[in-house]
Amino acid sequence: MTEPAPVFASGVDNERLNAQLRFLLEVDKLKRILRQSLLVDGSRRENSAEHSWHVSLVALVLAGRCDPPVDVGHVVELCLVHDLVEIDAGDTFCYDAGANLDREERERRAADRLFGLLPDDQGRELRALWEEFEAGETPDARFAVALDRLQPLLNNHHSNGGSWVAHGIARSQVLARMRPIESGLPAAWPVVLDLVERNCACGNIREDTA
Amino acid sequence: MTEPAPVFASGVDNERLNAQLRFLLEVDKLKRILRQSLLVDGSRRENSAEHSWHVSLVALVLAGRCDPPVDVGHVVELCLVHDLVEIDAGDTFCYDAGANLDREERERRAADRLFGLLPDDQGRELRALWEEFEAGETPDARFAVALDRLQPLLNNHHSNGGSWVAHGIARSQVLARMRPIESGLPAAWPVVLDLVERNCACGNIREDTA
Repeated sequence: MTEPAPVFASGVDNERLNAQLRFLLEVDKLKRILRQSLLVDGSRRENSAEHSWHVSLVALVLAGRCDPPVDVGHVVELCLVHDLVEIDAGDTFCYDAGANLDREERERRAADRLFGLLPDDQGRELRALWEEFEAGETPDARFAVALDRLQPLLNNHHSNGGSWVAHGIARSQVLARMRPIESGLPAAWPVVLDLVERNCACGNIREDTA
Repeated sequence: MTEPAPVFASGVDNERLNAQLRFLLEVDKLKRILRQSLLVDGSRRENSAEHSWHVSLVALVLAGRCDPPVDVGHVVELCLVHDLVEIDAGDTFCYDAGANLDREERERRAADRLFGLLPDDQGRELRALWEEFEAGETPDARFAVALDRLQPLLNNHHSNGGSWVAHGIARSQVLARMRPIESGLPAAWPVVLDLVERNCACGNIREDTA
């Protein structure tokens, strides 16, 4: 594996541009972070870069369903950067309680390093987008978080259960994970309930034990 | 390979939402379209979905360099949809003159089918984004096209010549391909010239024969 050269463009005397390009080369690594969810055709696990593109496109298509309306451009910005910290912190499987114990700390350190590659003002701007997504409190972030839950649900359903089957995930776990969709994208909540029901019925999602 | 079920969510009586979700499942196929360019670490070819994410993030980081300013939200929309037609038309290698002869026709048919999956009004909106990018005439599209040229240049440079080496590409071909950066993102043009020069010097790009 070849790491980017330390000096980017020897003939270019522009520290700001150099810093921006170094950051843009570094984020290429997100293409190598594998998630638990599969492509719709079940052929392989998806990576966090293509997932981020998919979620951004979901935002573009479903933004009109929000009431009150969201700022779709801002939502897409949240989606584009929301997983960047996984370059250092890895993808933490949402149903792995143990791995999630120190997720925040690992991701905070990753944010320090990655956004620190950018010129200060821009690093603060992009970090603020990531923090807004993580907090999930603004209307735009609530919508973005809902999309980040909906896309893997669709992929799992269409890849014969995908990561639910692989890890024996139970109905209550899926419903808890999907809950942000109920408030962030209410129009899709009936779809979620329908898909969970159908995947429980065919055994892709297991019933909770008493 | 499992194709999406024809009826999406049996319990949901909402044709508009069903059409939107079917489109969003269909576009998952862009993750299986391989480009000629490699990841920065050279480990594999990148696909058009992760490329679209990368170019969108380049837009976010470099938008401030445009004069006159661009509408970064709109530029990102252009970047998110610009390669969707490759789901049907495939990725046409930019330096393959033969394959490019019928590229427009193949991509137009792909656009008919893919954007036709959406509700009419939304299909027209997303198709207009793709057509704006393809025409490359608005300031936003000129910037987006420049980014779509810059990102593979960076990846080729950092993966030891990538697709230039694999296909024996010559200096004049690379410069012609990169030319939209000169007007669409002038601040990066010196970087392009510098990288082309360095990659000619080390043999990653071949010199034109007399």
